[in-house]
Amino acid sequence: MPKPFTFDPGDKINLKDVAARPDVGHWDKESAAERMAENTAKSRDLAYRLYAENKQTLLLVLQGMDTAGKDGTIRHVTTGINPQSFQIAPFKQPSSEELDHDFLWRVHKAVPRRGNVGIFNRSQYEDVLIVRVHNLVPKSVWSTRYDRINDFEKLLTEGGVRIVKCFLHISKEEQRERLQARLDNPDKRWKFSKGDLAERKLWDDYQEAYEDALNKCNTKHAPWHIIPSDRKWYRNLIVSELLKDTLEDLDPQFPPSEEGLDGIVVE
Amino acid sequence: MPKPFTFDPGDKINLKDVAARPDVGHWDKESAAERMAENTAKSRDLAYRLYAENKQTLLLVLQGMDTAGKDGTIRHVTTGINPQSFQIAPFKQPSSEELDHDFLWRVHKAVPRRGNVGIFNRSQYEDVLIVRVHNLVPKSVWSTRYDRINDFEKLLTEGGVRIVKCFLHISKEEQRERLQARLDNPDKRWKFSKGDLAERKLWDDYQEAYEDALNKCNTKHAPWHIIPSDRKWYRNLIVSELLKDTLEDLDPQFPPSEEGLDGIVVE
Repeated sequence: MPKPFTFDPGDKINLKDVAARPDVGHWDKESAAERMAENTAKSRDLAYRLYAENKQTLLLVLQGMDTAGKDGTIRHVTTGINPQSFQIAPFKQPSSEELDHDFLWRVHKAVPRRGNVGIFNRSQYEDVLIVRVHNLVPKSVWSTRYDRINDFEKLLTEGGVRIVKCFLHISKEEQRERLQARLDNPDKRWKFSKGDLAERKLWDDYQEAYEDALNKCNTKHAPWHIIPSDRKWYRNLIVSELLKDTLEDLDPQFPPSEEGLDGIVVE
Repeated sequence: MPKPFTFDPGDKINLKDVAARPDVGHWDKESAAERMAENTAKSRDLAYRLYAENKQTLLLVLQGMDTAGKDGTIRHVTTGINPQSFQIAPFKQPSSEELDHDFLWRVHKAVPRRGNVGIFNRSQYEDVLIVRVHNLVPKSVWSTRYDRINDFEKLLTEGGVRIVKCFLHISKEEQRERLQARLDNPDKRWKFSKGDLAERKLWDDYQEAYEDALNKCNTKHAPWHIIPSDRKWYRNLIVSELLKDTLEDLDPQFPPSEEGLDGIVVE
């Protein structure tokens, strides 16, 4: 089965060496769609068991450059599963109240309840990405955050949260095509902002910031998964596999029933 | 199409006069499933537009006696729609922090964001239902809450939230069968608690409390919909219609794109 690119904690990767459009073997859109339908059916049942069990939590963290497809991945991978299984938290520009606290304050509040599958659409990593690239705080501030993020993720893990971090990896050329498509398609134009072009000019700075986040925060308890994302269907297939595999690994069980229920007749 | 039972603000209904298992005309499980699949496809598109538009909010409030099917309704009516469209808030026994505030404090915090479809699994009405039936506060306290709920719902409505309140109406005999089925089915037994039998003994008190909530809080801005729920498939069909109809009525539009985008070529 197609897998994300992973690497050992302590090893260093360079994003230029990771293919955004790898060889897909015998897979194509049709076989991927079939497999995803099977995954969805399995994940639906497992998410229901996770909810019934009420002991463990799964947290999927999605990061990626503009147009990498965070929303599209969520839509394709979760549609068909009971929405009550999910708590999806989008992290946009922080509010002034959020900025009046440490950078993990708003993130901690959004951690999903036990029994749920949480999805972070952007995350704590924004504070070592956009914040770093735009110098919103000095280097002395952002440079210690990698350790704080690792500590925070350790806390969640020990509290029963399985963290699955995905970086949706696209090439610069693919982003160009997707931005152009938004401009050229009247139904998609509302998604385009001139600010997107200014951000694109900072491509290299963002790639460098991502490399640091990937290398410094690739821990045993919360490893990074690099998802080749130039092909949308392949990206969705891999994340769908990852969700199903992780739920299977959590192996949630229906809880035991109360004692002394045998023979009760309801009147 | 099958519709919920509704009544004019100011009119009084008695739950005994509302059928929990009405005549369904030519509808059956199969035709209902087909129609629901169509509704889901339409609601999926409309919910996406609602999100893109980012101006209006839909809030579905679900109440009902134990086993009436709040979770089942959510599962059947929302599965197949992008979970990122929903914010689902379950209201369980309040925490000590929540009890240290007025009864609407925790509810207000759970109001969905603009562009989202919120679902309250139980709601502000618990404070004039279980709280009243079990005398958790004196009558002088709960009796003023109906007005406060109406005021609160007015506030939300004027802030752009369309409120759709559903009471899932089952008969006492149907509840008996469902509780017995939980006991008799090993896969469902974990859902059963002896406390359910104690609650069932208070059936008449709950029906009376529900009647008051329905009659006193059936306002023009936030009307009640009584959903005949003795047949699960019929209950699901009606709520699915209601969701789709309300989204159609909100008529969300894609937002306009930025000015001056013509002719831009992404480099």
